[in-house]
Amino acid sequence: MARWEPDARGRLERAALELYAERGFDQTTVAEIAARAGLTERTFFRHFNDKREVLFRGTELIDAISAAIGAVPDGVAPFHAAAEGLTSAAEFFADRRPHARTRQAVIEANPALQERELIKLSAMAHTIAGALRARGVVDPTASLIAETSVAVFKVTFESWLADASDRPLTAHLRDGFADLATATRP
Amino acid sequence: MARWEPDARGRLERAALELYAERGFDQTTVAEIAARAGLTERTFFRHFNDKREVLFRGTELIDAISAAIGAVPDGVAPFHAAAEGLTSAAEFFADRRPHARTRQAVIEANPALQERELIKLSAMAHTIAGALRARGVVDPTASLIAETSVAVFKVTFESWLADASDRPLTAHLRDGFADLATATRP
Repeated sequence: MARWEPDARGRLERAALELYAERGFDQTTVAEIAARAGLTERTFFRHFNDKREVLFRGTELIDAISAAIGAVPDGVAPFHAAAEGLTSAAEFFADRRPHARTRQAVIEANPALQERELIKLSAMAHTIAGALRARGVVDPTASLIAETSVAVFKVTFESWLADASDRPLTAHLRDGFADLATATRP
Repeated sequence: MARWEPDARGRLERAALELYAERGFDQTTVAEIAARAGLTERTFFRHFNDKREVLFRGTELIDAISAAIGAVPDGVAPFHAAAEGLTSAAEFFADRRPHARTRQAVIEANPALQERELIKLSAMAHTIAGALRARGVVDPTASLIAETSVAVFKVTFESWLADASDRPLTAHLRDGFADLATATRP
């Protein structure tokens, strides 16, 4: 039985991000991450399958978005249900902007990680389309709303990272969905 | 001086797509594509840098979209300018549905090609955002409209491929933009 390491996961995550930012993702080894965190490689592999997984957490956020869309009252129209679900799930990022900024810089420096990020966003759209279908929305409308919602998420996430003020991601998202509604008016 | 081969590019493209569909992309060699087309490998490399480029033509479509957005009259609001530009450029696909269907099947069978497709769509969004900025649209609105327009293109392109009727891609695109405008109403 491994001994309990207080906040091992958080320490490994912070150590990994620091090293990726300092040296680049490809130049960092799991051994170095474990050493920086004061933990063993074995502990690293209890929490992550590989060093890429530190940047891309399984399906945690995507599952939260799906559940949040499912929890929106029935009367709410699909686009607004997707917007509410995404905004509600985005509370996850409330105190994570410094982390998210470092992560973004690491990803922007590495084309393979950028591809991985696009795949995650595509998976997010597929999950949102499924959550909308479960609300009775048919295709292609379900896919259309899902893909455009993810587009709003992507753009507002970048605005949030670049914002010098303390406005939360949830406020950026609300603005983004409202801006899109205004832009599409005839 | 190489001798002139009538429609060498088209013959190579058709031969490549046939082979990718029959055997899979990874299992097909340039030598086999050239042989199937009745041409030499050297002729292949005069038209394409590698076998992936048969599926992903440089920036032809993206440049056409950018030019079409630039040609939309000044008074047209940004979302509608993006929609008109994309729809006008989509005339390129008028007689290419059989080709596009085979290409899609090849890409869906190969994760590395799917990643490449996502990168192309992301590049398309960046180019559209640039074309909107050239019309005086500021960020994040330019990026928001660009990313959502590409989302509409992606979904309606799939609807067009799946459609048993002969409705052109341009009609699917118009419906998609109209559906999004309806969906975002308060």
